[in-house]
Amino acid sequence: MATQGQVITCKAAVAYEPNKPLVIEDVQVAPPQAGEVRIKIHFTALCHTDAYTWSGKDPEGLFPCILGHEAAGIVESVGEGVTEVQPGDHVIPCYQAECRECKFCKSGKTNLCGKVRTATGAGVMMNDRKSRFSINGKPIYHFMGTSTFSQFTVVHDVSVAKIDPQAPLDKVCLLGCGVPTGLGAVWNTAKVEPGAIVAIFGLGTVGLAVAEGAKSAGASRIIGVDIDSKKFDVAKNFGVTEFVNPKDYNKAIQQVLVDLTDGGVDYSFECIGNVSVMRAALECCHKGWGTSVIIGVAASGQEISTRPFQLVTGRVWKGTAFGGFKSRSQVPWLVDKYMKKEIKIDEYITHNLTLGEINSAFDLMHGGGCLRCVLKMHE
Amino acid sequence: MATQGQVITCKAAVAYEPNKPLVIEDVQVAPPQAGEVRIKIHFTALCHTDAYTWSGKDPEGLFPCILGHEAAGIVESVGEGVTEVQPGDHVIPCYQAECRECKFCKSGKTNLCGKVRTATGAGVMMNDRKSRFSINGKPIYHFMGTSTFSQFTVVHDVSVAKIDPQAPLDKVCLLGCGVPTGLGAVWNTAKVEPGAIVAIFGLGTVGLAVAEGAKSAGASRIIGVDIDSKKFDVAKNFGVTEFVNPKDYNKAIQQVLVDLTDGGVDYSFECIGNVSVMRAALECCHKGWGTSVIIGVAASGQEISTRPFQLVTGRVWKGTAFGGFKSRSQVPWLVDKYMKKEIKIDEYITHNLTLGEINSAFDLMHGGGCLRCVLKMHE
Ligand SMILES: NC(=O)c1ccc[n+]([C@@H]2O[C@H](COP(=O)([O-])OP(=O)(O)OC[C@H]3O[C@@H](n4cnc5c(N)ncnc54)[C@H](O)[C@@H]3O)[C@@H](O)[C@H]2O)c1
Ligand SMILES: NC(=O)c1ccc[n+]([C@@H]2O[C@H](COP(=O)([O-])OP(=O)(O)OC[C@H]3O[C@@H](n4cnc5c(N)ncnc54)[C@H](O)[C@@H]3O)[C@@H](O)[C@H]2O)c1
Ligand SMILES: [Zn+2]
Ligand SMILES: [Zn+2]
Ligand SMILES: [Zn+2]
Ligand SMILES: [Zn+2]
Repeated sequence: MATQGQVITCKAAVAYEPNKPLVIEDVQVAPPQAGEVRIKIHFTALCHTDAYTWSGKDPEGLFPCILGHEAAGIVESVGEGVTEVQPGDHVIPCYQAECRECKFCKSGKTNLCGKVRTATGAGVMMNDRKSRFSINGKPIYHFMGTSTFSQFTVVHDVSVAKIDPQAPLDKVCLLGCGVPTGLGAVWNTAKVEPGAIVAIFGLGTVGLAVAEGAKSAGASRIIGVDIDSKKFDVAKNFGVTEFVNPKDYNKAIQQVLVDLTDGGVDYSFECIGNVSVMRAALECCHKGWGTSVIIGVAASGQEISTRPFQLVTGRVWKGTAFGGFKSRSQVPWLVDKYMKKEIKIDEYITHNLTLGEINSAFDLMHGGGCLRCVLKMHE
Repeated sequence: MATQGQVITCKAAVAYEPNKPLVIEDVQVAPPQAGEVRIKIHFTALCHTDAYTWSGKDPEGLFPCILGHEAAGIVESVGEGVTEVQPGDHVIPCYQAECRECKFCKSGKTNLCGKVRTATGAGVMMNDRKSRFSINGKPIYHFMGTSTFSQFTVVHDVSVAKIDPQAPLDKVCLLGCGVPTGLGAVWNTAKVEPGAIVAIFGLGTVGLAVAEGAKSAGASRIIGVDIDSKKFDVAKNFGVTEFVNPKDYNKAIQQVLVDLTDGGVDYSFECIGNVSVMRAALECCHKGWGTSVIIGVAASGQEISTRPFQLVTGRVWKGTAFGGFKSRSQVPWLVDKYMKKEIKIDEYITHNLTLGEINSAFDLMHGGGCLRCVLKMHE
């Protein structure tokens, strides 16, 4: 193609400073170096982690940067030594890499690959520890190794999942973060079994995906907990069978759930990012076996606490990142499940806007009625 | 026998008040009622839980009471409906009951039987919610459903493990608490696998039993952490391969262990009861899979804390009570393993005294050089 080996100038939403509106700029995207892939992003969604870093609360947040990590696109060109994808392949960039070679990948116990972490955490690429984005020669940091709020982005080859070219990119972009996180928390991290009683704290995209995963795992009761009762109607479609609004009770929410379930739930999931809810989620678990999984990302510096007796009497406290899915291996499998109508995606998409409307999209996200807003990246 | 159906008057160590020396008294022990078993205690050891309740720090502690929960003896008589043991059977009283009928026992997921808990927690027997111990008509509370600091005790039938009559009671009494707790934490709760790297915080009886369990599970490195370097020599015999005294370092102990192990241990065990060590034990675990098991009992009201990111990045926080062993089913199996020399017991016994010397035995326990002190109950 004409663009291979060339710098591409395209539109991207740049976060110059915490909390200041993103600015749509002409950005220069350098060609991919060895082990890198340049992707034309077709659709990206917004996730709370983007908003978190943008807010300035993320101590590792670097500015100026290009946010975004839930997207789908088509490979434009590849750097030296890249063998697993080629130009024209349909792909999902994955913030959680999978190199298949490091201690983590080979352990068989985790999806947290260590290969490119030092670079992605520092907003640069491994090869030369520099950014591929610039504006008039001034570098702009990468974000989570994905930076999908750009019409073109450069990622490490270990962070690219090649998917079925028939899959609609405006839908499967959601398989870059929120939906797999919820499904995987149930299937991989908690391993919910048929008949189990499940409580879900927070019914946003992640919580609803937990509900969907729990339903497919055969849970007998799926109790949704949210302070916003408007969430309850839509949550029914994802498998939630009962609803609890903590505001309707005078007692602690863990006690409400213990009373509702004759001793506690088998599995609970925190899908908010609130450390006191994390404690409640653990303490509403059944003595002897109840397992609580933390998914929400808490504000920096905040801590979780409980009495150790909660654990000595058999409760288990866990967490999950990207639902425990191995990204390059399993995202394509999730795409196939979507194509076979075994998992939902369309139902999570409440809004469709364009890259130019990204600031409105963030406003919508904070508004409440929004699950996922998908941005079209090219006119 | 002559004593069946009669009140037995015998010697017992009575705790009248927190922290006041135990008093050897003539105690009346009523006959067992329906579902109860009266046991002649031959040998009892002392455990830190006895000292904890005696100290007055246990908010559920009731006085006056008869402490003790690590013992072995012979059934003297049984109440109505007791079918699984009969007079003359050699037994170990188990503070953790196993009824095989309750929600917990039937779950297949825990050893925490719920059948007699409301009674044992209140220092009485289920049948009439009264004590079988009295002195001149004034009731003395039971403790943990065992009260083995008495020459005769009455326990619920669901709390009696019938064992091989060939087994030496002065040794196998230790299978009533500390040794199974450590072994089971490794085998049942953590499920340590061959090659794993293990850290043990606290090298008392429980910590050494963890080491023994880890060695038999095939752990490749067993790192013992204790602030008392005198513990290191004996710990070698139980399988500990490396020693760390936190006092020798200027950095946090979790960092010392992470550095020693290229990223953290696979499994850690807290065998002290110190909430800051519990945090260190979690945080020295390897990202992605490290599992920490809390065994130590913390002072009432104290809480554990950590950053939720520790769990989101794959560490797991658990606890264990009686090592997850089902008492009536598995204590006899542990006795058999001891008889086949597959597990140690003798090596944990550093002192032998008599019931009359029980206050000295507690002094020894707090002294440091003592692992377990076994008391002979009858002259
Ligand atoms: N661990 C991971 O890999 C991972 C991946 C994606 C997202 N996340 C995190 O998951 C969390 C959820 O993401 P989302 O997109 O579903 O968010 P969301 O904001 O759409 O949903 C959160 C829900 O929680 C509810 N809520 C807020 N406070 C509450 C309270 N005190 N009690 C009960 N309900 C309450 C809100 O009303 C809302 O419905 C975020 O913290 C996000 O950063 C983690
Ligand atoms: N969960 C259960 O079912 C269960 C059963 C039995 C005992 N326990 C508990 O297990 C714990 C250990 O029992 P034990 O009999 O082995 O006790 P112990 O007192 O013999 O051993 C504790 C060890 O910890 C060391 N230590 C103290 N503070 C330390 C620190 N800050 N860092 C490192 N080492 C430190 C001491 O030097 C000692 O060697 C107690 O809390 C006891 O109540 C729990
Ligand atoms: Zn996300
Ligand atoms: Zn890897
Ligand atoms: Zn004990
Ligand atoms: Zn039971």
